[in-house]
Amino acid sequence: MFTSHIECPKCSAHYEPDQPHQLCSCGSPLLVKYDMQKVAANMHKDVVARRPPDLWRYRELLPVVNADNIVTMGEGMTPLLHLQRLGRKVGMQNLYMKDEGIIPSGSFKARGAAVGVSRAKELGVKTLAMPTNGNAGGAWALYCAKAGIEAVIVMPKDAPTIPRSECAIAGAKLYLVNGLISDAGKIVAAAIAEHQWYDASTLKEPYRIEGKKTMGLELAEQFGWTMPDVVLYPTGGGVGLIGIYKALCELKELGWVSGDLPRLVAVQATGCAPIVRAWEEGAQQSEFWNNAHTCAFGITVPKAIGDFLVLEAVYKTNGCALAVSDEDILAAESLMAKVEGAFVCPEGAACMAAAERLLAEGWIKSDERVVVLNTGCGIKYPETVECNPPLLQPGDTLNWSA
Amino acid sequence: MFTSHIECPKCSAHYEPDQPHQLCSCGSPLLVKYDMQKVAANMHKDVVARRPPDLWRYRELLPVVNADNIVTMGEGMTPLLHLQRLGRKVGMQNLYMKDEGIIPSGSFKARGAAVGVSRAKELGVKTLAMPTNGNAGGAWALYCAKAGIEAVIVMPKDAPTIPRSECAIAGAKLYLVNGLISDAGKIVAAAIAEHQWYDASTLKEPYRIEGKKTMGLELAEQFGWTMPDVVLYPTGGGVGLIGIYKALCELKELGWVSGDLPRLVAVQATGCAPIVRAWEEGAQQSEFWNNAHTCAFGITVPKAIGDFLVLEAVYKTNGCALAVSDEDILAAESLMAKVEGAFVCPEGAACMAAAERLLAEGWIKSDERVVVLNTGCGIKYPETVECNPPLLQPGDTLNWSA
Repeated sequence: MFTSHIECPKCSAHYEPDQPHQLCSCGSPLLVKYDMQKVAANMHKDVVARRPPDLWRYRELLPVVNADNIVTMGEGMTPLLHLQRLGRKVGMQNLYMKDEGIIPSGSFKARGAAVGVSRAKELGVKTLAMPTNGNAGGAWALYCAKAGIEAVIVMPKDAPTIPRSECAIAGAKLYLVNGLISDAGKIVAAAIAEHQWYDASTLKEPYRIEGKKTMGLELAEQFGWTMPDVVLYPTGGGVGLIGIYKALCELKELGWVSGDLPRLVAVQATGCAPIVRAWEEGAQQSEFWNNAHTCAFGITVPKAIGDFLVLEAVYKTNGCALAVSDEDILAAESLMAKVEGAFVCPEGAACMAAAERLLAEGWIKSDERVVVLNTGCGIKYPETVECNPPLLQPGDTLNWSA
Repeated sequence: MFTSHIECPKCSAHYEPDQPHQLCSCGSPLLVKYDMQKVAANMHKDVVARRPPDLWRYRELLPVVNADNIVTMGEGMTPLLHLQRLGRKVGMQNLYMKDEGIIPSGSFKARGAAVGVSRAKELGVKTLAMPTNGNAGGAWALYCAKAGIEAVIVMPKDAPTIPRSECAIAGAKLYLVNGLISDAGKIVAAAIAEHQWYDASTLKEPYRIEGKKTMGLELAEQFGWTMPDVVLYPTGGGVGLIGIYKALCELKELGWVSGDLPRLVAVQATGCAPIVRAWEEGAQQSEFWNNAHTCAFGITVPKAIGDFLVLEAVYKTNGCALAVSDEDILAAESLMAKVEGAFVCPEGAACMAAAERLLAEGWIKSDERVVVLNTGCGIKYPETVECNPPLLQPGDTLNWSA
């Protein structure tokens, strides 16, 4: 047990770690704090290196007390790929992609689900509920099935449809809403108030972020316990970005990495860019974004409950926030497939589009180590690809033109 | 360079490894042979253990000569999961799943594509062509894009549609055919004869199988360099099964594993079971299966060119061949998701259905170490899941019934 306590980043209230917690009484998300001296005494790089290639290799920096409660499908240690061909094409010598498509359920949401559900199981949760833009719902439904926890999921009817299949086959209770994730959130909140379920909404319990932060731990390990210069992250609820920031701060405290943290870039779509607007105004939190719409559905979040934590991570690392158009997102998705064979999700492609723009503006230097975080596999988004192949009959000849 | 030569398993002809090869002049597929003394002198378990978790950790047992030619997206070292809950439910104490859904392009076809395309690149191939039931085409299209090789892909119009998106976004030349993979194969063969392309059809070049065999190498390593008792494999073209057999034979020759090889089970669907029929008759090869049809589309192969190698692997390991119905396949797919949170492809589910039957028949003992090979992620097969969630309006209340 390496958790020392649960802490509110807004009012500094402390909570005991062995009870279920949702938001702080002040309304803020809560964060898990560790006894870093105890972690330092028990966790060693060479031991970590010999453990299986999944996120549980960092178990001392994770909140699960009893290993029997771990609900795992082998998630984590996703590939960090040096995109040499694409880097040459766009003028970046050290362009990397961390590919979160190579994980159970095909998106980074598996990390939050693995740790969040493990901890929910440990706390004795029987039913949990959450709103989702799709991938989180699919991942939590599947991990809950394995844990024997009932999951109630509400997602926008316009969300990509494959996560519906994940929820359905996992046996979750799935509802669609004729609206956005903010509308789904209100329905879930009302149902939780009525039925006293565990609230697994983004940042309304403190453990999902602990799973997401392992992306930051892996990045550091995969770079030989050094840090890249820039990390671009597609930002909806922002938990991944907050998690990476938290991870790297913890590693600095342990002395496992040193120097400046990477400049964190919150990437949004021009059709839903509340964090970008706040950053441009130098604000500490965002305003609700009206009429949100983008092909990168996962980041269609009009107002994130953790917006102030995202902005803090961006400000403190001298990062920035940037919105890219759907047109640029789809162009980047195509480019990454044609040059690197990487079929990424639109949210991941948004980061590549943002990297190109920041390079053109001189904010990124051509020799900097730049990481594009691809949060999911493109195969969950077949509708983003146009495809009209000719139909042949048996015995036909290919009508070939090179 | 650890390859000694290319060999025909039928007529024992030898070929030089540094030239492109397709079938043997006798019509048989060719296999890669290694200088095992040289491999033994250069490859060590503790060194392998420290390499990155991808299939290139076994590079001395792979055919690529120059590491610069490796085309990789981090594929391999997929999770081996102990399915404890499902095992308890069905009465198997040591039931495992190797999950090939956790890999670029979401199926085990990425292994064959990674090694096959790397070697094609090394041999100077500019254009290759292949028939496919979907996943191989998607994987080869993406790896070819990264390698700068043009890919021509022909797939049945009834194949699952997501691989079409993979081919399209990768920039491959994609054609559909109003027939089966055997019809696609004839069209490809004619086009290759006309254009002198490289033939990447199943077993018509000797390197795809080298990629697939890494499943066997990983299984042995993940079991601590021991072998399980039974491996169930969904069998269409059969390359994965032949590859696992080849891998374990090579490891035995190296002395890295000892004892009996696992009993290999070729799992097919009742709607397309040529290998099963041949095995039941004690035959050395199969007959063309008419009117082939199953929901496990990937194994809809009426006549496999490597059928004699599949049957040899089954006979030599005291394995068996078994067909399961579509109904049982879909029931197993649902069961694996609801009990283990694993959303597998129908082909993987077929192996679980077969395992249950072989246990009931006493062919599998309840304490044996049994591996179900799941060849791909269920998210590529959303059409196999029924899903009709209720639609709510903003402000609605969940109409909850537990």
